[in-house]
Parts: sequence; C-alpha cells; structure tokens
Amino acid sequence: MAISTAGAVIPCKAAVAWEAGKPLVIEQVEVAPPKKMEVRIKIKYTSLCHTDLYFWEAKGQAPLFPRIFGHEAAGIVESVGEGVENLQPGDHVLPVFTGECGECRHCKSEESNMCDLLRINTDRGVMIEDGTSRFSINGKPINHFLGTSTFSEYTVVHAGCLAKIDPSAPLDKVCILSCGISTGLGAMINVAKPKKGQTVAIFGLGAVGLGAAEGARIAGASRIIGIDLNAARFEGAKKFGLTEFVNPKDHNKPIQEVLAEMTDGGVDRSVECTGNINAMISAFECVHDGWGVAVLVGVPTMDAVFSTKPINLLNERTLKGTFFGNFKPRTDIPNVVGMYMKKELELEKFITHRVPFSDINKHST
Amino acid sequence: MAISTAGAVIPCKAAVAWEAGKPLVIEQVEVAPPKKMEVRIKIKYTSLCHTDLYFWEAKGQAPLFPRIFGHEAAGIVESVGEGVENLQPGDHVLPVFTGECGECRHCKSEESNMCDLLRINTDRGVMIEDGTSRFSINGKPINHFLGTSTFSEYTVVHAGCLAKIDPSAPLDKVCILSCGISTGLGAMINVAKPKKGQTVAIFGLGAVGLGAAEGARIAGASRIIGIDLNAARFEGAKKFGLTEFVNPKDHNKPIQEVLAEMTDGGVDRSVECTGNINAMISAFECVHDGWGVAVLVGVPTMDAVFSTKPINLLNERTLKGTFFGNFKPRTDIPNVVGMYMKKELELEKFITHRVPFSDINKHST
Repeated sequence: MAISTAGAVIPCKAAVAWEAGKPLVIEQVEVAPPKKMEVRIKIKYTSLCHTDLYFWEAKGQAPLFPRIFGHEAAGIVESVGEGVENLQPGDHVLPVFTGECGECRHCKSEESNMCDLLRINTDRGVMIEDGTSRFSINGKPINHFLGTSTFSEYTVVHAGCLAKIDPSAPLDKVCILSCGISTGLGAMINVAKPKKGQTVAIFGLGAVGLGAAEGARIAGASRIIGIDLNAARFEGAKKFGLTEFVNPKDHNKPIQEVLAEMTDGGVDRSVECTGNINAMISAFECVHDGWGVAVLVGVPTMDAVFSTKPINLLNERTLKGTFFGNFKPRTDIPNVVGMYMKKELELEKFITHRVPFSDINKHST
Repeated sequence: MAISTAGAVIPCKAAVAWEAGKPLVIEQVEVAPPKKMEVRIKIKYTSLCHTDLYFWEAKGQAPLFPRIFGHEAAGIVESVGEGVENLQPGDHVLPVFTGECGECRHCKSEESNMCDLLRINTDRGVMIEDGTSRFSINGKPINHFLGTSTFSEYTVVHAGCLAKIDPSAPLDKVCILSCGISTGLGAMINVAKPKKGQTVAIFGLGAVGLGAAEGARIAGASRIIGIDLNAARFEGAKKFGLTEFVNPKDHNKPIQEVLAEMTDGGVDRSVECTGNINAMISAFECVHDGWGVAVLVGVPTMDAVFSTKPINLLNERTLKGTFFGNFKPRTDIPNVVGMYMKKELELEKFITHRVPFSDINKHST
C-alpha cells in the first residue's frame, strides 16, 4: 500500500514517444495525483497492441507528441481522487481504452458499451476532468493516449476506465485482456454467438482474430475456418482451435464463394478482424442465408464504403458491428478474468514473449 | 365435408388472367384432385396483395399466362392427397406463398423460415410434385401462382404451404394474415423486437408497414414514427398507433438526419417496407448507435446496391433482412391467428372494403 505517495507527485520511468515513428525514450516523468473521479495506478505489466503502433507511426491522423502510449496493461491502485467510491488503494485493475460511466444512455442500455462520457477518443491527449495532462517532464506536459498511457510505471486513469479484478489473478497473464483479445472474444461470444456445433469463419488471424477463435472454441463451434493472406500464421493458429485455413491468394474467385463451397452454402457465423473493406464484404456474404450472422470488428480507412446486393440481406442474413466485443469495461471484464481463473478461457497460448520495460523498443518492432 | 368430390375433378369458377395487365375473366375451370403431399381447398375469402398486381402487370419479369393469381386467403380442406397426415377434410387453413417442409436445414433451424423445398418461387406455374398444373380449361392447363392461386373457388396447394388454424377463427378476417400483414408484424415482433417504451420508425405505410406498426403497438413502443412520401396515408395510419409522421418531401436533408434530430441520436428500431434502396439506407442509418436495429422487408430492383460507411456498422448498429416476418408458415401462423382470437392483434382496422368474387376486377383497381 503506497500510503506515502498519495497526494504527492510521483517521479517514475515512462517510455516517451517524442516524435512520430522514432524509438521511445525511457524518461523520468512526473505523475500528478489523481483529480476528481481519477485513479493513479502502478502498472505491473503492459502489452502492446497494433493501435499503439498505428498512432506512434501517426500516418493516418494528426500527430500528437510527446505522448506516452500503451493501453493493454494490468496494475494496482496507488491512490484515488475525489468521488471515487468503487476503488481503493491496493485493488487490482485492468485499465481500458474506453469506459463505463454508469450514468449515460449507453451505460444504462444492456445492449451498448459505447459510453457517451468515456468512449474511446484517440485525438485527446489530456484528462477529461480539467483538460490537462497528469504527466510532465520539467514542467512540460506530456500527452496521454486513450486515457490509459500504460507505458509508464505510474499512470492516471478515469475511474470509469478501470476494471476491478480478482486479486488472485496473475497480472502478467490477464494484462492482455485489456484490448484485442477481449475484443475478438466478445465479438464471438457476445455478438456472433455461435451455437454448439456450428461453423465459424474468422477473417484475420492476429490477436483479435485469435481471440475470436478462442471464443468459438469456448462456444463449441465444430469448424473454425481461418482466412488470412499470411500463410505463416496458419501453423501457430492451430493451437487456438482453428480447424481449416483459407488463403485468398490461393484462389481466383471471391473468398465468399470458396467458403460457400466448403460449407454447403455458407458458414453459420463470421467475424471480420482485418478492417480491409473487401474482407468485410466477404465476411458478410459468406454467411448462410436464413440464419447467418456476420460481425465486423476491424476498422477500415475513412473513405471505405461497405456495399452489397440487398438480396444478401433480405435472405435473412444479419450484419452487426461491435466495439470492444460489446463488453462493458467495469461490468464485464472482471467476468472475463473469471473465465480465465475457471480455466474456461486459455490465455497462456496468446503470450509469445516477455521483455523488461527497458527493452520496450525491441518489443515494439 | 365434401366427401362426394374427393378424387374427382371439381369444376368451379376462377378469375383467370389471360394476358398481362388485362382484366381478369371469371371462367369455369377444372381443378384436378390433389396428388402426393397436396391438398385441395375450398377458398372462402381471398384478399389482394400488391405482389398479385405486380406479376399480373408483368413489367419486371418473364410473363407466365394464362395464370390464376391470388395468395392471401382462407379456406377449408376439401380433400388431401397421398402422404398428407396433418390435415384432413374440413380443416380450416390459410394458404401461404412460401412453405415449411419440416425436413430441410432451414425448417430444422429455429432461426430460418426459408424452406429449401417450398421457398417462394414466382417463376413456377406448376406443382412441384410432378411439374404440371392442377387447373385446366377444356384440357388446356392454366398456370398456378406462388403455389396458392386463391382467385379460384377451389385450388390445390402443397400441404407444407397450409397453416391449420383454429376453426372458430372468422375466415373473412384472418384471410389477410396470409401475407403482407404477417410480414410486417413478424418483421417487428420477431426480428426488430422493440422493447417496451422504445422508439420505432417505419418506412412505407402500406399493408406491410401498417402490420409493422401493429407489431410495434403490441410490443409497447412509445413512439411509432411513420415515413411515407404520400401524406394522404397519415390520417388513416393514426388508428394503427403511429404517433408521428415524416414526409421526406418536406425536408431537404437526408431523412436519417431528420429522424436523428427528432429522437436524440436515432430511433431504437426501424423497419423498411418500401423496397426503395435509398429508403433502405436511410432506415439503417437512422437507428441509434450502440443498440439500434434496422430490419429490411421491402424488395428493391435487381440492380440496386446497398451501401453505407462501415463506421455506421462498427458503432454497434445491426442490419437484418427478413422474409415473411421470419414466421414459419405451419408452425407460427396458427399462433398469429391465436393472437387475433385473444384480441392482442387487431385485424378489423386493416379491412377497408369487401366485394363479391364476381367483382374482382373492381377490387384489383
């Protein structure tokens, strides 16, 4: 319990991105105490998501530097700000890049997790309470990222973006539930909802797609077909329960036709995890008429347009999009940790390597 | 009980369409006995659906004449063919333009009603058992329509296309449950599924749209917003529970923006009953992010393309198509009749006028 630091500025190490695409620099930063509805946490483990790289490269958006990236992590509450009632020092938490205020229409709807107050905002580099940063170096503010900035020994996060988890859960494992794996898992079990014995297609076998595969395995899907342009991913994906693989490069017809032939008319469920607009269309058109459900997860470029013949919809297909697997961060993520603790959800297979914080640039490349 | 006619050809009156767009002619036709898995029924009441007119005009498809139209009706079983076990002479039935064989993957799926064997086929003018017609005039065959051909005093229908209903149900009322009203009703209560107190938009206030409105009223929607280019429909629609009306002609911006402004960001559910592709896109884009569900019912032209920005999907909207309101004809339509008998469903308000069979051309125009 870090009673001695509550209310004080904490000096600590953080990996600062000074410029787009340049190596992160481990700097001594000052982390201010949490303000109203904020919580300061000690980060124990952080993992890396492609979204960190995307905004670090800053090729598709307005650059915002210097900035502390990182949004998949696990930590322990050091101190809480005014008004925080559901967390206290010592609690184990997962910071999440989107939040759950508990008060807005979305939080009150059982169907949505797109909180009006704390919904993901990639352009914001400050805390919402007062529009300033809690990070500084020699008085110069450093931008936050996604309200989490977990590439720091200490960070400040809105209380609505922290999932309080079982303190016996190993933080070095469950830290990866902050983003991609939960996104894929939730897309499958909360949105696509395959029934036992059904056939599932997953487009894109990165962390999100493998999270979806884990969801399909848990749901009892009989066939889990992975589609990826990178055949090197297929061998490793087998331990995630994938039963078949399709590489669009091996076919000279639309992949939805290939899948329809493999499955007597179409798969029962599909989950799209690439964000490629053609893959999104294929993922929709490959589901069986009458009952097929396609779930879109991947985020395409701004100018992409989804298009299909209306008959594909009228023939009783369903098309849905999801964000963070429809999980409400505070309500649902503790239960996902619970699934791991009950050995329903396997996390070890997602972890390929570990590096000390000082080697973060090796990890990122 | 027509014991004397079983097995014999029945001469009776039918309204025959000899040519596209020409008035129907009441003719003496011969109706052959039902063959394997077929049932011959005496039609007591028939109503008229726009689909009859569409194929009578034959502007959008290959003409198939002479033909006996009609597919919304109620009748009584006169005799049954070989293998028919669930129906017997005297049973009250609603013939349906699509069927339920009970054996195919669709019939066995609780999610689909698109029977592989008996799915709607507008191009077929014969019975599936032997590829011939049961209607003839002086030995010359007359084409069937949708497997129902209810503009005849007697008709032959596949047993899988007959819903056996409560014999105490008034056939002059429940005959209208064979097609459009059930389609709209089912689209709302089976697919859109609004929750009590939610806001619903309905595009197109014909019989299907009013059926959807009746579904919204039954579900307890608090606001039912009707969208139609024909303002003359608004007054009459009030008795179907519609609370507000929007005429796209009154606005110079996309109707989804008008609806978003009226509803703090979008409606909870929408049902599209026009088949106009722009209305389909508006019906999707007007639902609220996080939880909105749009259901497409109307059938557009062959060359139409549905298109939208992917973010509209990714923000947790759902887009679904439906066919015959997702009702399985034999399993579910008896229950819809039951809803009417329990006074949950109001049918009288859908019936505007009645004409004797001999005046069928007045009815059609």
